[in-house]
Amino acid sequence: MPLARIDVAADYTAETVKIIGEVIYDAMTSTANVPVNDRFQIINRHAKDELVYPEAGYLGVSYTAKIVFIQITWNAGRRVEVKKAFYQAVAEGLHTRAGIRKEDVWISLIDVQREDWSFGNGEMQYAPKL
Amino acid sequence: MPLARIDVAADYTAETVKIIGEVIYDAMTSTANVPVNDRFQIINRHAKDELVYPEAGYLGVSYTAKIVFIQITWNAGRRVEVKKAFYQAVAEGLHTRAGIRKEDVWISLIDVQREDWSFGNGEMQYAPKL
Amino acid sequence: MPLARIDVAADYTAETVKIIGEVIYDAMTSTANVPVNDRFQIINRHAKDELVYPEAGYLGVSYTAKIVFIQITWNAGRRVEVKKAFYQAVAEGLHTRAGIRKEDVWISLIDVQREDWSFGNGEMQYAPKL
Repeated sequence: MPLARIDVAADYTAETVKIIGEVIYDAMTSTANVPVNDRFQIINRHAKDELVYPEAGYLGVSYTAKIVFIQITWNAGRRVEVKKAFYQAVAEGLHTRAGIRKEDVWISLIDVQREDWSFGNGEMQYAPKL
Repeated sequence: MPLARIDVAADYTAETVKIIGEVIYDAMTSTANVPVNDRFQIINRHAKDELVYPEAGYLGVSYTAKIVFIQITWNAGRRVEVKKAFYQAVAEGLHTRAGIRKEDVWISLIDVQREDWSFGNGEMQYAPKL
Repeated sequence: MPLARIDVAADYTAETVKIIGEVIYDAMTSTANVPVNDRFQIINRHAKDELVYPEAGYLGVSYTAKIVFIQITWNAGRRVEVKKAFYQAVAEGLHTRAGIRKEDVWISLIDVQREDWSFGNGEMQYAPKL
């Protein structure tokens, strides 16, 4: 169910882009109770002036052109501690497996409801809570 | 008011991309009470490695590189039955009018509030509920 | 914290695209209590057929191919009057500083919670409300 939008600079290699997707999926399944094979990701590659971040940094974090913007739409209900563990797993994984600075890992979450998904066939696969 | 983000492979023809937009708009007006002319859509074309789906499928649905990712932001308040009818109308329409496999029709919804839109002129056209 | 997705025609100049980003950030800090340096923006440039708007207009507003789609994810809690002021500041700024028709300024907001952000380092920088 999560849909991950991943926006990165066009000069990231195909190999690194692939690893970014794998890391996000692995972090979802290991920390956030996302089911196996529930992997849907949309990647956008960008020219330099299309990814904008504060040159002075924000909250003590500094950014480079290698910033990875990750925006995830998923079901509401995950606790704060789960989201914290997810953030950490993504940043650790991207650093360890792709050499990306942890400061360049930027994540935004959007919570939606169980009825807000169709995974194909025109069906609402997740029964809504009563 | 709905904003539809449509992400597809770059090798879809311009004609098919146009039909995809039409089908989504028609499904909105016929099943989900969206006003006539309320049609705002952003299409992104993608290289092969930019649209990621599970090779093994998910929940019994299998996907191909022709997958159509549709993410719609619209006003909260639509009932579960309306969302179900909308999913079905989009999948049916894309299959009938563009030959797209119904399994490749993937939809995500985001509910927002009436005050969350400006349709131009710097105005908030929808009066918020009191 | 706001993440602004900005979708425009590919024939907008780099200079205008830069001004669009500046205007949105300035409107956020001046009307919507967004902190200094909290500027994160993703720009997508599009072919003509990728930005779809109603030819007949909507709610009395008419659009051209110069339409600027702005979708902002930010924290819930801003009052209706604040959102109104923000819409106005963006449209005024884009018109004054970039010559864009105010009718072509299209804005969608998505409210999320304080725990829905990681600004880098794998941390949840905003403490959630208790």
